[in-house]
Amino acid sequence: METTSRNSAEAPALKAAATRDRILAAAARTLSLKGYSATRLADIAEQAGLRPPAVYYYFPSREELIAEVMTVGQLRLREHVESALTALPDDTPPMDRICAAVEAHLRVELDLSDFATAVSRNSGQLPEDIRDRLRADSSAYFDLWRDLLVKARAAGAVRDDIDLRAARMLVMGALNWTPEWWNPRQGSLTGVIRTAQSLVRHGLGAL
Amino acid sequence: METTSRNSAEAPALKAAATRDRILAAAARTLSLKGYSATRLADIAEQAGLRPPAVYYYFPSREELIAEVMTVGQLRLREHVESALTALPDDTPPMDRICAAVEAHLRVELDLSDFATAVSRNSGQLPEDIRDRLRADSSAYFDLWRDLLVKARAAGAVRDDIDLRAARMLVMGALNWTPEWWNPRQGSLTGVIRTAQSLVRHGLGAL
Repeated sequence: METTSRNSAEAPALKAAATRDRILAAAARTLSLKGYSATRLADIAEQAGLRPPAVYYYFPSREELIAEVMTVGQLRLREHVESALTALPDDTPPMDRICAAVEAHLRVELDLSDFATAVSRNSGQLPEDIRDRLRADSSAYFDLWRDLLVKARAAGAVRDDIDLRAARMLVMGALNWTPEWWNPRQGSLTGVIRTAQSLVRHGLGAL
Repeated sequence: METTSRNSAEAPALKAAATRDRILAAAARTLSLKGYSATRLADIAEQAGLRPPAVYYYFPSREELIAEVMTVGQLRLREHVESALTALPDDTPPMDRICAAVEAHLRVELDLSDFATAVSRNSGQLPEDIRDRLRADSSAYFDLWRDLLVKARAAGAVRDDIDLRAARMLVMGALNWTPEWWNPRQGSLTGVIRTAQSLVRHGLGAL
């Protein structure tokens, strides 16, 4: 966004941007808790402390608002996993890189971002037009995982009986389904991460 | 169902039962393809070769119809996996029993039953009241898996670093998410089953 010089128009513009962000955050929260079909505009408005018609001042429709939440969520998921990978030393073995991606995915989805949770829970439920618009973003994320697995296989770290595409999608499913069952009252996030990493490391690994 | 003696009332009753079944099958198909939120009563009616109002002659509401599809699907999933397990010799090692359950789950979900696919794709998306009614059925299925894992651990076939609840739910997620990505044009079902079994066997196993 551009930096503007301070003037009398600035305060209302900032306030509008803040309100818009609040609506997006409220939509992400509601989607992450209730799922796509049960998410009503009235719930989002209530969560944002607004009356429902006010939402239409910022977003043309419920669908547009949800599409934006999904776009942001997809991006946060990917960026978080990418930064976790970038932070690793260059000589990190490929299976350790995969395990770092498992951890980053679970942390952003279960702990850090309602936007990412909204994506994991709802990507299979969207109407075709929203799904089409999200396809490029989600395929960038799938590409990241494909690349991790291809490099691991090239390094001899993945067993020969593993079909890489099936393995990638099974792992994505295991990770993406966690918001359906995990909650902090029933066990630590670290425990889930350790079990998921061990499953993936031994599940794929040529040990 | 009871066998009734042939009489003049039988033909219309049979016809009504057949139409009801056709609507259920159409609803299962539509839910398995489009997901809960995009499944409209009009789509179901069209798929069943009926006009939308005719559906209300058999089901009081869209929600009731969907709840029945989910109940049937949950039952088919569990019964199919249970029969696969029952068919195994008594001395089948616990990890082989788990792998048989993986195969049975994937076959019924991806190939044999639209009802089971509808359950896997939509169980996280249902309104609370339908979800509450399905809870007993789905927990019976989770119990089956819990039992498989507990016995495998008791037999020393599951590694100590694996948390059984997290592992069970991660495996359920991997399996339940398959209808989101698998289609017969992109690879054989047997290939997916083999990779899933290998992932689970090595992922959990104390080899």
